[in-house]
Amino acid sequence: MNGDFTLFTPTKVVFGHDVETRAGEFVKAFGGTKVLIHYGGQSAVRSGLLARVEDSLKKENIPYVTLGGVVPNPRLEKVYEGVALCKANGVDFLLAVGGGSVIDSAKAIAYALAEPEHDVKELYEHTRAPKACYPLGVVLTLSASGSEMSDSSVISYEDKKRGVNSDLCRPKFALMDPALTKTLPAYQTAAGCADIMMHTMERYFVNGNRMELTDAIAEGLLKTVMHNALVLRDDPENYAARAEIMWAGSLSHNGLTGCGNDAGDWACHRLEHELGALYDVTHGAGLTAVWPAWARYVMKNCLHRFVRFAVNVMGVAPGATDEETAEKGIDALTAFFRSIGMPTNLKELGVSPTEDDFKLLAKNCAIAVGGKIGSAMPLYEKDMEAIYRAAKE
Amino acid sequence: MNGDFTLFTPTKVVFGHDVETRAGEFVKAFGGTKVLIHYGGQSAVRSGLLARVEDSLKKENIPYVTLGGVVPNPRLEKVYEGVALCKANGVDFLLAVGGGSVIDSAKAIAYALAEPEHDVKELYEHTRAPKACYPLGVVLTLSASGSEMSDSSVISYEDKKRGVNSDLCRPKFALMDPALTKTLPAYQTAAGCADIMMHTMERYFVNGNRMELTDAIAEGLLKTVMHNALVLRDDPENYAARAEIMWAGSLSHNGLTGCGNDAGDWACHRLEHELGALYDVTHGAGLTAVWPAWARYVMKNCLHRFVRFAVNVMGVAPGATDEETAEKGIDALTAFFRSIGMPTNLKELGVSPTEDDFKLLAKNCAIAVGGKIGSAMPLYEKDMEAIYRAAKE
Repeated sequence: MNGDFTLFTPTKVVFGHDVETRAGEFVKAFGGTKVLIHYGGQSAVRSGLLARVEDSLKKENIPYVTLGGVVPNPRLEKVYEGVALCKANGVDFLLAVGGGSVIDSAKAIAYALAEPEHDVKELYEHTRAPKACYPLGVVLTLSASGSEMSDSSVISYEDKKRGVNSDLCRPKFALMDPALTKTLPAYQTAAGCADIMMHTMERYFVNGNRMELTDAIAEGLLKTVMHNALVLRDDPENYAARAEIMWAGSLSHNGLTGCGNDAGDWACHRLEHELGALYDVTHGAGLTAVWPAWARYVMKNCLHRFVRFAVNVMGVAPGATDEETAEKGIDALTAFFRSIGMPTNLKELGVSPTEDDFKLLAKNCAIAVGGKIGSAMPLYEKDMEAIYRAAKE
Repeated sequence: MNGDFTLFTPTKVVFGHDVETRAGEFVKAFGGTKVLIHYGGQSAVRSGLLARVEDSLKKENIPYVTLGGVVPNPRLEKVYEGVALCKANGVDFLLAVGGGSVIDSAKAIAYALAEPEHDVKELYEHTRAPKACYPLGVVLTLSASGSEMSDSSVISYEDKKRGVNSDLCRPKFALMDPALTKTLPAYQTAAGCADIMMHTMERYFVNGNRMELTDAIAEGLLKTVMHNALVLRDDPENYAARAEIMWAGSLSHNGLTGCGNDAGDWACHRLEHELGALYDVTHGAGLTAVWPAWARYVMKNCLHRFVRFAVNVMGVAPGATDEETAEKGIDALTAFFRSIGMPTNLKELGVSPTEDDFKLLAKNCAIAVGGKIGSAMPLYEKDMEAIYRAAKE
């Protein structure tokens, strides 16, 4: 509760037009001699992106192998497949060409390669902490996860979705060409914007110490994302708006928007992880589906922050009471999510949990967080179940 | 003019109470085995800070030598002295304990050690670009220069003050304990706040591309610094305000507040460098002494930015015309500088250039910048002389 913090953002950011054609140059600069190009679906192939990245490696005479097929909520099986491929080919540098799923999968492979005597799954089970990680670089194609600068990797296996955080996996470089995101479906663009906002909001809705400077950055970032999400809804090819969202995505989750607060809340992310594991929903959409219910449930326990959010971020006129102001802020953000086509409850998300599902979701979430989670309000299993139920429709 | 940018901020920031006692731990983590502790005046000795840093190295069994005596506008002679001491003792890691002068001097020594076959002066003369640099860490004692995260080193020699910029010299770590700045004289605290503001303003007053997110961060930072500069004027021991200023100092000059703009203006800094070289003034005070004259001189050429600054940063009500609004913003910032005891012209700075001096200052500045400088308005020697004269009183 004293405002101390550590920030480590070593990733070299190279941002702008056609930067993906410089991948080889940066792999070389950071010492890669044999590369795995890791990617997701066929769009990277069809668009010619993969060919441009491969050409840049050829230009530097850096040999590589490729592995596609990473899916949203990336699977541990694909990680193992990548590890085997890398070992067989002597890969010493991972190049993720994609969004959060691809980057997180590459991080998992990089962890596995650095400690080959262990099963990388243990990191996600939190039975072991990582001690080393192979170097990786990123060509970013989706603004959302912030994984291109973050210390986070989230992997799904069995019916679980689990994350591990360590500075070891922060990418060496991130090549960020906003133009690469122009062809995304509108739903993915909007879900990405929601995810970006939530990375800052998880750090914003906290009790305990806050820094003015961090609040100012967080509020500026949230307003920038909301403005440009609306621009992109109406004009998906707007490069400048794509650039604002892409850069906001990195800054939202590299640690900057949490400096001097006390660790963040993270309840919505953990509540969503269980939805993602059980129903394989889009992460950003899962977040907006639980946020309104979460906000109403915890609001009174962190009222000053909800009031500040309502006025400084959502621009609402203060109500007669702090609670009224806070509620107006929650209403305003809920309306914003709806305006960009994001769900604001589970029904809109397309998910209808059974009675047993509600219990299972809460139970799994409580296990995953070690009993409780949250700074705005500490949540236990019964709270989680109540929030899932309140988010029903 | 297309918004492309690169950002590289590898410095590990460890911020908060008593972090200076962990210096040894981080020197070890970043591979240092023989250290030069570089510092400024006797206050670091008297306060016990140096002893705490030395103890932290002893605890890790890391041998070290010490060299104090770095002065504001640090001299090349001291750099050479440090280089000789390091060579004689096999130093492989520089630990700067101080503010910008000490850090910049340590950076110069680090450059010199990495390329011992060359005279480090050539880097500052720009007859050679650096290719390598020894690793350095920082224990920060003054919030101002941002050198603890920046790529910049400024050294004075003969009647010159010259800088070199390269990612090579960015510190490996910065230990930032706001409490260490509590005992600074009020004038130094205020000059530091001015320097911090100017690092963002140099990047703010530009023609060409801007990002909304960068503007939001810049404006939030400037308002945070102004608010907390006033807090510290009245309550110098306020830890929270010291923390806001210290963190703003790093973010203001690590590149973040310039992302997506097109290089920045930097005219005020270069105009001040010549004042610093000729009169050895405090850097932040030299900046505020030239800024009002500079702003009035260039305003019409970058009117939209001065209007935005007036409204978003200084909070002035728009005037009847854009020019009136812009002028109100300049007046408001000038009044703010005065309110924290900073000079707003050369007379208040305590400097009375002769006719010959005005010409010499402008001539030296023009030479140093290779003829012209500025984005808000490109300035040539005649413009520089006009601004120096307009800043007279």
